[in-house]
This record gives sequence, C-alpha cells and structure tokens, in this order.
Amino acid sequence: MALQEAATEDDLRAGLAQLEKSCEYLASSRPTGANLFWALERVKRSAEEFAASRPEANLQSLREHVLEEANAICAEDVDMCRRIGENGATFIKEGAGILTHCNAGALATAGQGTALSVMFEAQEAGKKFRVYVDETRPLLQGARLTAWELQQAGIEVTVICDNMAGWLMKQGKIDAIITGADRIAANGDAANKIGTYSLSIMAREHNVPFYIAAPSSTFDLSIKSGTEIPIEQRGADEVRFFGGTKVAPDGVGVYSPAFDVTEARDITAIITERGVVEKPNAEKIAKLLRHKG
Amino acid sequence: MALQEAATEDDLRAGLAQLEKSCEYLASSRPTGANLFWALERVKRSAEEFAASRPEANLQSLREHVLEEANAICAEDVDMCRRIGENGATFIKEGAGILTHCNAGALATAGQGTALSVMFEAQEAGKKFRVYVDETRPLLQGARLTAWELQQAGIEVTVICDNMAGWLMKQGKIDAIITGADRIAANGDAANKIGTYSLSIMAREHNVPFYIAAPSSTFDLSIKSGTEIPIEQRGADEVRFFGGTKVAPDGVGVYSPAFDVTEARDITAIITERGVVEKPNAEKIAKLLRHKG
Repeated sequence: MALQEAATEDDLRAGLAQLEKSCEYLASSRPTGANLFWALERVKRSAEEFAASRPEANLQSLREHVLEEANAICAEDVDMCRRIGENGATFIKEGAGILTHCNAGALATAGQGTALSVMFEAQEAGKKFRVYVDETRPLLQGARLTAWELQQAGIEVTVICDNMAGWLMKQGKIDAIITGADRIAANGDAANKIGTYSLSIMAREHNVPFYIAAPSSTFDLSIKSGTEIPIEQRGADEVRFFGGTKVAPDGVGVYSPAFDVTEARDITAIITERGVVEKPNAEKIAKLLRHKG
Repeated sequence: MALQEAATEDDLRAGLAQLEKSCEYLASSRPTGANLFWALERVKRSAEEFAASRPEANLQSLREHVLEEANAICAEDVDMCRRIGENGATFIKEGAGILTHCNAGALATAGQGTALSVMFEAQEAGKKFRVYVDETRPLLQGARLTAWELQQAGIEVTVICDNMAGWLMKQGKIDAIITGADRIAANGDAANKIGTYSLSIMAREHNVPFYIAAPSSTFDLSIKSGTEIPIEQRGADEVRFFGGTKVAPDGVGVYSPAFDVTEARDITAIITERGVVEKPNAEKIAKLLRHKG
C-alpha cells in the first residue's frame, strides 16, 4: 500500500482492511497456536480503537500506531520469557537430567523462550545439569534449533531420537521433562508438538515430573478441554522425504498430525510469567488469570 | 582360502579355525541378537562333529557340509516364518489398525518374516486391515523396508513418525501392535529395536494388545530377565546426519541405544513357530521349548 498524504475516512478503512487481511494470513500459519491469535487480536483491537478515537488519525499515524503496539508486545514478551524462566528455575535440581521436546527457546519467541528460559535461568543461578533433546521428527526442531541454543549457552546437551525418551526414563536418566505449549484449554489440557502426549504418559509411568512452560496468553478459556483444540495436519512429504532424500516408497500413505494434547492430570505444573499452577485444573487456572501478575 | 586337494588333519584344523573366525566376525555384527548366535553355534557344532566323525573328511567335504547345514537352516527358516504367521494371523481382526516398528519381514529373515508374516498370513486368509508403520529412527527401517514390503504385498500401509504412535493409540486407531524381537529372556522380557519399550507402555495405557512374533531360537534361557541383555550402542553420526545432511550442530552429544527391553508383563502374547505363549512367564516359555513343535 503506497504512502498517502490525504487523511480520509476511506484511507483509514482501507488501512484497517489491509491489517485484517494480514492478520488472517498470519493466523492461517498455525491453527493450533493460541498466543499467536491473542497477539493478532490485540493489534487489531488497538488499531480499531485508535482509528475510532482519534479525529486527527490518518493512514500514516495508524501504521505507526500498529508498529508501536507490535513493538510493545515484543518488549513484553522479552520480559515475560525471563519471568517464566525465573518462576521455573527451581524445578531444575543440581546435577539433573532434563528432557525437552521441539523448540521453545529464543528462536520461537521474542525473548529467551519458555521451556528453554527455565534452563537458561537455572544455569544463570549456577546450576549444572544435562539436557536431553528429542530430535523431534518430522522437522527436527530439537536437533536443529534447541540443541544449538543450549550449546551456545554452554549447557550440556545430548540429542536423542524421539523413540529413545521412554527408555532413558526407564534407566533413570531423566529427572524432569519441560516443554512449551501452543494452546492450553481452560481445564489445563495442553496442546504441544506431536510426541509430547507420549512423553507425558511415560513421565507418569516412571514418576518423572512433567512441566509445561508457557505465557499466560497460551490459555484459551473459550475451550473447555483439550478435545476441542484443532490439530494441524502436515503434508506427507515432510515424512516421506528428508532434505532431498526419499526415505519411504512412492505412493505410501502418511499420517502426520503436528500436535497432540497432554491431559491436565499428567502435568505436574504449568509455569507462566504470572506464577506456577501446580496440578492444574480449571479453578486454579481461572484464579491465575484473574490476578494480573 | 584356496581349494586344496590333499586331505590332511592340518587342512581340516585350518578349515575349522577359518570357520571359527568367520563366526566371530558375524557374531560381532549384532550383540543383542539371539538367533544369530544360535545359527552360528549350530553350524560350528555341526562342522566339528563332521570333522571328528568322518575319517574320510577333507577340507572340500567339510566346506560342502557347512554349506549344507546353512542351507538347511535357511529352509527351516522359511517354514518357520510361515508357521509364525499362521499361528498369529488370528490376532488380526477384519478392519483392524495394526502398528509395527522397525522391520521384521522378508528382508530380515530367510522367509517371509516374523511380525510381517503374521500380516501376510492374515491377508492370505482374506482379511482387510491397515498397518501403521513407525518410520523407526535413526535408520528408518520402517519407512524404507517395512512400508515397501507391505506395499508390495498389497496391504494398506501408513507411515508415521515414531513420536506419533501414542497419539494414534489415544485416538483409537490402533487395535494391536505386532513387532519382532532380537532376544527374549527366560522370563519373557524381550529386546527389540529402540522404541519398542515405549510402545509397550503406551499399549498398556490404551488397552491395546501387544504381540511379539519371533522364532523359538530367539529365546535365550541362559538369561533370566531382560536386565541382563546387552544393548548395542550406535554411533552419533547416525543421529547427527540424515543421508548426507547434517541435522544437529557439530560437537553436540548423542545417546543412541539400538535396542530396548519390553517387560514380559506388558506382552500380551509371544507368537512362535511352535505355538503362542499368552501372558508369557518362565514356566510357560520352558514348557513351549521342551515340546518341539
């Protein structure tokens, strides 16, 4: 959209329509996510209020306002990530083996991440521990991103294949599991990268505490339980090909859900920037969200 | 070793020594396996008996005898695989979803396999069903080999990443799990490809029957329980690289056990060529092995 000098109602309406379109496009990237929608909604609402309440508003000032709001969200995210880390660091004991899945670090947030922030803050507090990272098929965010982030931070990191996690727990190598979440229902059921559900079952089997670290904007109180969370399906070729290499026969079927849902009863605690919800349930979550931390 | 005409005791001794060395080399390929050792032992014992009992034996006749014994094992394996399939086919119900892990088919045996033989025989009996195949990281035997074998046989096949299996069970898509085994202890604990242990825990959680299909030569009665089974560790680059593509940062640690051990209590039945052992335990297994089927 070209910069326009004249401030007319038509210009503003066009600007808001363009913003709406951009938000729709960004929202289509990840149907399972919650705080993506939260951020888009916040920017849209703020732009509408701005346009409605400022008689002097023109397209240029609207755009500046939208950028300001986005920058404010970014700054809040940096701070929020740090507070999630501070609130969770106590769950990492000296000498512990920690397991994580996918990427919930600086590469996935504006700040130092959610699950990884807990590790960064534990390290900041002087603790030594080892992090086992599920490589996280099909897209290998664990091997490619999380392992790199932890290595850069000087934390001991060991990559494993996803199917090894249960056997590591059985051998007593894992003292805690910490992952992020993409959407958390009102009752505490949490959607996260495919494979997280299985980890939560293994964790219960082996008495390993299972933590979710996520900003409070991940809660979606409009959704009562995890069964209502939409699960994004991914294309077959992410499984059938690896880099350029074909790894399964032509024409073979593939089923590839990008997320699964961990039940609240299998979550030891949800670590947010507002505080920690142990043994999460609808009542405790509602209470956390009522009190702005 | 060059073909030699003269039949001397030295020749025979050299032949047996060469056989011993070859057996050692083959045994080093897979420390977790059981029926590999069983077959090598059988060939060696047979060669020694041949050399000791035939005054007319020479190197050439010894070599022919070894080949004959190997061919006999091969023929027995073909027959045995078929009988495993026949004994297990009843566990596949019409319209079922079956999950398997790694490769236990014609590419892994002299015959039509063990776990896959059960599927081939169920299909032979006219049943329609779908097989979900774990891709089986790090070496992807499921995606590369099992998917291909099932596709060739005209069985409906869907490849999934290993970390999706638990979520499929949660959704009710899996009615039975059937895998092979590399070694089974006297009490029924069974070593198989890494990831099998986790499947067995998921199976219990979701009330999905879990079957092991294996020849009776897989039992190792010298080992009381699974804790004594040696677990082969694999090299880091199988996880760090994928085809030629690097997927984890340089210098990052990797832990890669090739096998894990499923506990007997989580195995619904062990399907062998001699019959089926339901809820396996030491007594039932000893009984099966006493009666040659």
